[in-house]
Amino acid sequence: MSSNSIGKTFVITSFGESHGKCVGIVIDGCPAGLPLSKKDIQIELEKRRPGFSEISTQRREEDQPEIISGVHNGFTTGAPLTIVVWNKDVDSKSYELIRDRPRPGHADYTARMRYGGFNDYRGGGRFSGRITASFTMAGAIAKKLLKRMNVEILAHTVQIGDVKLLKRVTYKEIKKNVYQNNVRCADLRISELMEKEILESLEDGDSLGGIVEGIALGIPAGLGNPIFDTLDADLSKILFNIPSVKGIEIGTGFKVASLRGSENNDPFMIKNRKVVTKTNNAGGILGGLSTGMPIVVRIAFKPPSSITKKQRTVNLIDQKEDDLEILGRHDPCIVPRAVPVVESCMALILVDHSMRLGLIPPVLN
Amino acid sequence: MSSNSIGKTFVITSFGESHGKCVGIVIDGCPAGLPLSKKDIQIELEKRRPGFSEISTQRREEDQPEIISGVHNGFTTGAPLTIVVWNKDVDSKSYELIRDRPRPGHADYTARMRYGGFNDYRGGGRFSGRITASFTMAGAIAKKLLKRMNVEILAHTVQIGDVKLLKRVTYKEIKKNVYQNNVRCADLRISELMEKEILESLEDGDSLGGIVEGIALGIPAGLGNPIFDTLDADLSKILFNIPSVKGIEIGTGFKVASLRGSENNDPFMIKNRKVVTKTNNAGGILGGLSTGMPIVVRIAFKPPSSITKKQRTVNLIDQKEDDLEILGRHDPCIVPRAVPVVESCMALILVDHSMRLGLIPPVLN
Amino acid sequence: MSSNSIGKTFVITSFGESHGKCVGIVIDGCPAGLPLSKKDIQIELEKRRPGFSEISTQRREEDQPEIISGVHNGFTTGAPLTIVVWNKDVDSKSYELIRDRPRPGHADYTARMRYGGFNDYRGGGRFSGRITASFTMAGAIAKKLLKRMNVEILAHTVQIGDVKLLKRVTYKEIKKNVYQNNVRCADLRISELMEKEILESLEDGDSLGGIVEGIALGIPAGLGNPIFDTLDADLSKILFNIPSVKGIEIGTGFKVASLRGSENNDPFMIKNRKVVTKTNNAGGILGGLSTGMPIVVRIAFKPPSSITKKQRTVNLIDQKEDDLEILGRHDPCIVPRAVPVVESCMALILVDHSMRLGLIPPVLN
Amino acid sequence: MSSNSIGKTFVITSFGESHGKCVGIVIDGCPAGLPLSKKDIQIELEKRRPGFSEISTQRREEDQPEIISGVHNGFTTGAPLTIVVWNKDVDSKSYELIRDRPRPGHADYTARMRYGGFNDYRGGGRFSGRITASFTMAGAIAKKLLKRMNVEILAHTVQIGDVKLLKRVTYKEIKKNVYQNNVRCADLRISELMEKEILESLEDGDSLGGIVEGIALGIPAGLGNPIFDTLDADLSKILFNIPSVKGIEIGTGFKVASLRGSENNDPFMIKNRKVVTKTNNAGGILGGLSTGMPIVVRIAFKPPSSITKKQRTVNLIDQKEDDLEILGRHDPCIVPRAVPVVESCMALILVDHSMRLGLIPPVLN
Repeated sequence: MSSNSIGKTFVITSFGESHGKCVGIVIDGCPAGLPLSKKDIQIELEKRRPGFSEISTQRREEDQPEIISGVHNGFTTGAPLTIVVWNKDVDSKSYELIRDRPRPGHADYTARMRYGGFNDYRGGGRFSGRITASFTMAGAIAKKLLKRMNVEILAHTVQIGDVKLLKRVTYKEIKKNVYQNNVRCADLRISELMEKEILESLEDGDSLGGIVEGIALGIPAGLGNPIFDTLDADLSKILFNIPSVKGIEIGTGFKVASLRGSENNDPFMIKNRKVVTKTNNAGGILGGLSTGMPIVVRIAFKPPSSITKKQRTVNLIDQKEDDLEILGRHDPCIVPRAVPVVESCMALILVDHSMRLGLIPPVLN
Repeated sequence: MSSNSIGKTFVITSFGESHGKCVGIVIDGCPAGLPLSKKDIQIELEKRRPGFSEISTQRREEDQPEIISGVHNGFTTGAPLTIVVWNKDVDSKSYELIRDRPRPGHADYTARMRYGGFNDYRGGGRFSGRITASFTMAGAIAKKLLKRMNVEILAHTVQIGDVKLLKRVTYKEIKKNVYQNNVRCADLRISELMEKEILESLEDGDSLGGIVEGIALGIPAGLGNPIFDTLDADLSKILFNIPSVKGIEIGTGFKVASLRGSENNDPFMIKNRKVVTKTNNAGGILGGLSTGMPIVVRIAFKPPSSITKKQRTVNLIDQKEDDLEILGRHDPCIVPRAVPVVESCMALILVDHSMRLGLIPPVLN
Repeated sequence: MSSNSIGKTFVITSFGESHGKCVGIVIDGCPAGLPLSKKDIQIELEKRRPGFSEISTQRREEDQPEIISGVHNGFTTGAPLTIVVWNKDVDSKSYELIRDRPRPGHADYTARMRYGGFNDYRGGGRFSGRITASFTMAGAIAKKLLKRMNVEILAHTVQIGDVKLLKRVTYKEIKKNVYQNNVRCADLRISELMEKEILESLEDGDSLGGIVEGIALGIPAGLGNPIFDTLDADLSKILFNIPSVKGIEIGTGFKVASLRGSENNDPFMIKNRKVVTKTNNAGGILGGLSTGMPIVVRIAFKPPSSITKKQRTVNLIDQKEDDLEILGRHDPCIVPRAVPVVESCMALILVDHSMRLGLIPPVLN
Repeated sequence: MSSNSIGKTFVITSFGESHGKCVGIVIDGCPAGLPLSKKDIQIELEKRRPGFSEISTQRREEDQPEIISGVHNGFTTGAPLTIVVWNKDVDSKSYELIRDRPRPGHADYTARMRYGGFNDYRGGGRFSGRITASFTMAGAIAKKLLKRMNVEILAHTVQIGDVKLLKRVTYKEIKKNVYQNNVRCADLRISELMEKEILESLEDGDSLGGIVEGIALGIPAGLGNPIFDTLDADLSKILFNIPSVKGIEIGTGFKVASLRGSENNDPFMIKNRKVVTKTNNAGGILGGLSTGMPIVVRIAFKPPSSITKKQRTVNLIDQKEDDLEILGRHDPCIVPRAVPVVESCMALILVDHSMRLGLIPPVLN
């Protein structure tokens, strides 16, 4: 019943706080024999590192991962892998001011109710987006395992505020462009509009939401474990674990509501001697199992709750309403930094299910 | 790693097939001392029973539940509760025709890949919507437990095809009207339009999708178990377990993508000496924990894949493309029958989380 | 947290009561493609069937298993397998007398405290040895799977009361003799003495304990999942789940306490080009992992608590001490009927661990 | 399926290696609001610290625990608690010699088979007794929680080699004497004999086994979760997780085999207005549930496999038999250092089960 663990064969256990000593992850079930170095983890952490551009939080963490167990002579040993990022640029002073006045949209109030006020509220504690660094570290390993199966995970920003990616982008464009611009959009012209949109909201002391699309290429047909551990259910669970997510859709998603069966069904056909579907409204998942087509997920992120604009809240000590002005360092739009986190979360679920069906063995060679 | 079980304290294990002997559920962790009779289960099963109207499948199951373990002298004993519905109106002949020609949009192809062709394909087997009868039986018990906490679960149809519920309906209207019309819509005028929409698609040999909204009233603040067993993640997982679901959103959902923080944040205020939020864009969940406001979820259902219109598929024996005409008895729109299933799924998660925090004790009195 | 489930890949969920409608089992994770008929289950149930001889309970159950889900056309489908034995020879009248006067040595008192008196006390309810019929049904399937790996599970009675099996018996003798005598002893001369011992205690209105030895042959080296899901820990857990067990030892067991390392260590050697150990004090397990040598476990069973001799207890209504005479039908010694249950429990753990390492695939062919 | 985690509400995840950077533990599910300092952990670690006497390994670790997550302002926060002991006195040179020649009685061979040779073999890696430092750290917290329920856990050495504790010792003597002598025996005269026994075997280049008894006082009646998560089954599982354990017995244990029911049954009686049993052959557990009497467990430890006497093994490279002389620093008898580990393991299970029944709330105050 560990609520800080997820997965059944490739099990990750997250620990640490935003302003505590560290953020860390234990990975239990990683096969023995995977070459692994600090650098493999670093690459993924780098993609979500705070402080990389004008439109991200100004907290500047080096985010150097330290592997403290599970690797010997450069290979995973089959024992639990533990990786830690030590927090260095911590500045908690602004959080005393809001201790008794919960920030609207944040977990301050609900966490206080859940943990009787004992929760570490500094920087949001366990509820901070910083916790996703632990997802990313585990995701780095998951991606290495998937690569051996020729599975590739992509993610890109498809909407920020009112700026949407209108035309379809190719996988090639996604791979080439996403990490070449600050908003993680595959269309470089749209990316400029998105960045402008963020800067405008920042000037207004406000924040912006958006949508990320995640894609898994190369997943063989038949992956998933009905009826509860279906691919879509498990993907949606882990993606909802990313702070600020308010909606998930697979394939054609919410639009299916207004479609007829004859429009939505993907006809089967033969292509290069393989069974494929002509269209992919299903987003690569039927009956909770992979179809062999690309798995496509879209995730809606709310605008960050921390804004500098004045807001109304309640002082929990005297139970009176009050004004609130939030200080501290915050992302005006979390979407760009969520892109690698979406990739990691997808990779974690896909590795877990691949191991459950024996597609990745307990010892590699 | 039981993939047919869900929950951590109130654990359900589903078994049975659409055209096998039965559909059943084992419930482990139900407190001892709950008065329980067959009738309590019957009431919920009745709501999703096939064959109740012109717009549902013509398979006519009596759906009489039989409690085969866990109840003694009219009370739950604390031992596993097992409840079974014996399948009676089974007609499997049409399924031989499609055995080697997977129906587009169905799990026929993916299940064959997953289980090497050993899966029971008759009526969709484990992938049939009929399996949700097991969710409903467990949900009946979950609802009884929630009632003791003064928690109420509602669900209603908000969209079928292009017909949408435009104005906001009250909880009172939902309670009064939903089960008084065939489409489970709280607005009786809209319900007529929805029914007409379904009949039109049925005449065309086609099917329709839609959206259900689920609401939980009375959940206290602070329910949920971060960082992975959050309320939203666990709700989304179980709701994606309902066949045909392609999208989930909480509160304002996908619309948050185009909102600014100042629009989306729900300010805290005091009302009747209680901390509440002025608006409920969060849908009752912040940081994965309940806020004390109504929990609001919307679920997108695709149009049923079984349509009588001719479709293209592949014959898996000779690997050639082929035409397919589906026979059998099917729902032209699953949304109305999904409404009680959504209620049950929400109830199951909310009971599990309530028990995890000790809000429902192991022995009732 | 389902406490009526055990296993991580091959997961069994037990349900039912001694005097309820049935005793049943759900098996989740059984590979698809295993040929399975009622008869396969029947064979194992037969071995532990009550009423087979003068020295077992006179309750005469036919114990005809019914497979109610998970099998189609004679093969497992990969969906949950549910098997039920319907209780027929139930006589609960004697249990009303002892409802408020807990039988010494039984779970009457502890179950009442645990479940607030709502537990089904008839025939011991969930605490009855009858529940092990569900272990045996699952064990029948586990044994079929192990046979494909050339693993064989044996068990035999090594002690009843003061009668002990003194000389070592061969595996051949165990296979040949165990089910040819009423006490399940591999030495037919000792078996007569054991049977006599039981009859003597029966005449005195008393009961007898004993020891069963379980052996697994053919397990490859390296099975097990440290550091908590070790083979010895998982075997001991499931064996302690058999009612009346009070002790477990592996290999040389408790005798190691008085040995020196040089006596207890099993030297490695080469035999038929394979690494083996010269002795097997370890009982086939080192560091929680199999060594490739036979796995040897011994299990101590207490004398059945139901005796006809007068005993002292407490009337829980008026909280006064009282005499108690137990009626009903009981085994004077549970050991003979425990032998097949030990086999089944060992098989269940060994299949689970074999599946975890991919030694049994999710689809058989 | 995390095999390095145990528990269902109070879940511990162990990581680290004997000669790696650290040994650590993540505790998920510890209630919020428990005062906790490094010193609380230190006290328990101290009891099992290597190098404390002539009869323990000469590896001298300071074993200073560092809490790296889950505590804020001196109280647990409800977030995962992570505690680490950094390895300092590591000397791995002697392990290269034995890399390809498995030490008899050790996990060298089985681990190599399980992990394809990728396991960290230095100092036994994950199979080292050093890993129990992580159990002790978690146990320190479990004990603090149990103290609030007035539950006390004791353990003491009852046998080393041929020296046995013959007369019964009182709980008072156990509490007073155990940590006042090097062998953790409650009878100070016997303790001298035991120490002498160990020194003699050490002089012979040999090692000794023994038996530890664990006792839990103050556990209320009705604790446990049948039918698989029974108290005895869960205790035996975790106790078998301690390296070198080869047998477990509850209460009268293996002696029940030669008893009659009338001798073994514990009659119920009233004492101080409470239902108790006259004797405690059951060791405080009936039907897997606590009776309210002291829980009594005995655990058999084999003699440490590392002895300086010459032994026979196999060189795995050329598959030839060979002599082996083990260097390195080892305990000649692990029993004294196992005593606090037994205490911790019992405490961990008892806290988990207490939390499952709501006897310890999720937030303390």
